[in-house]
Amino acid sequence: MSAITPTRERILYAAAELFRRQGYAGTGLNQIVAEAQAPFGSLYHHFPGGKQQLAEDVIRAGGAFFQHLVTAIYDAEPNAEASIRAVFTTAAETLTATDFQDACPIATIALDVASTNDHLRRATAEVFEEWTTALTERLDDSDHALAILAALEGAFVICRAQRTTRPMHAAGEMAAALVTR
Amino acid sequence: MSAITPTRERILYAAAELFRRQGYAGTGLNQIVAEAQAPFGSLYHHFPGGKQQLAEDVIRAGGAFFQHLVTAIYDAEPNAEASIRAVFTTAAETLTATDFQDACPIATIALDVASTNDHLRRATAEVFEEWTTALTERLDDSDHALAILAALEGAFVICRAQRTTRPMHAAGEMAAALVTR
Repeated sequence: MSAITPTRERILYAAAELFRRQGYAGTGLNQIVAEAQAPFGSLYHHFPGGKQQLAEDVIRAGGAFFQHLVTAIYDAEPNAEASIRAVFTTAAETLTATDFQDACPIATIALDVASTNDHLRRATAEVFEEWTTALTERLDDSDHALAILAALEGAFVICRAQRTTRPMHAAGEMAAALVTR
Repeated sequence: MSAITPTRERILYAAAELFRRQGYAGTGLNQIVAEAQAPFGSLYHHFPGGKQQLAEDVIRAGGAFFQHLVTAIYDAEPNAEASIRAVFTTAAETLTATDFQDACPIATIALDVASTNDHLRRATAEVFEEWTTALTERLDDSDHALAILAALEGAFVICRAQRTTRPMHAAGEMAAALVTR
């Protein structure tokens, strides 16, 4: 990232990447400022609430960004079946292109904080809710939306562990079948 | 857990619970021995490889235990559709009964280590592979097995974040539909 990127954005971007790859507990503030090439003091200047505020901003910004990305892919297709296939195929391509590191921006944090930090848990819950709402608007079926989101999230978990995109393609076929019946 | 439980098992059980709820990085050895009511030295006596060996044993033992549990539920039903429904319904009941803390024994570790510890990543990959094989033997379709496992894993993520079992039930309906067509 260029040094002319504002410090706040550099910190947010570095934190997003580290949280996604290493989890919330596994990421230290020192590592974030080093990665962001920012002075340590600038972190508390821009994020007075420290690590928790930074994580909440990462969850909400990452959630909005991912939703924007996925709905753009979804809405470019002519029907629901093609849209679902395009989303899962793009997810598989992203996993391959990033050496199985870049997947859901909030899943790793979500599992880390689900039982340990209720404030951050609520933030992840709200992002999952927004994604479900966006998909429900397109499918007219909130159960189908939830099921498809679950398939996508679970496929990310198994793909990252096994370093193969097969689970993503298998989950995508199941999700596509759900909306074509 | 009773004090007559052997020390090694007390440590393994405490570690399993803490890793599942807090993740790998978020769990310290001091916390594990405190929870296990074991002297600190006993941890390295029973697990000379320290935290990584403990995590690997937790992943493999948790994987085998969960597989035993799930296949028992699965095999008690008369057909694949009923089996899949029973597995997802039991998962939802377990989430409710444990205040949304007990879900997949390895998902939280799997995301934590996927990009940070290749030795442990391989252990989680092997467990997912064993689960997929067990389900493939029952469904005669490895893509269906992978897709259903993804739906189950992703539903755990969203249910724990949102503290509701709706995603598990929606994912279960999708999975049941896949094996009845």
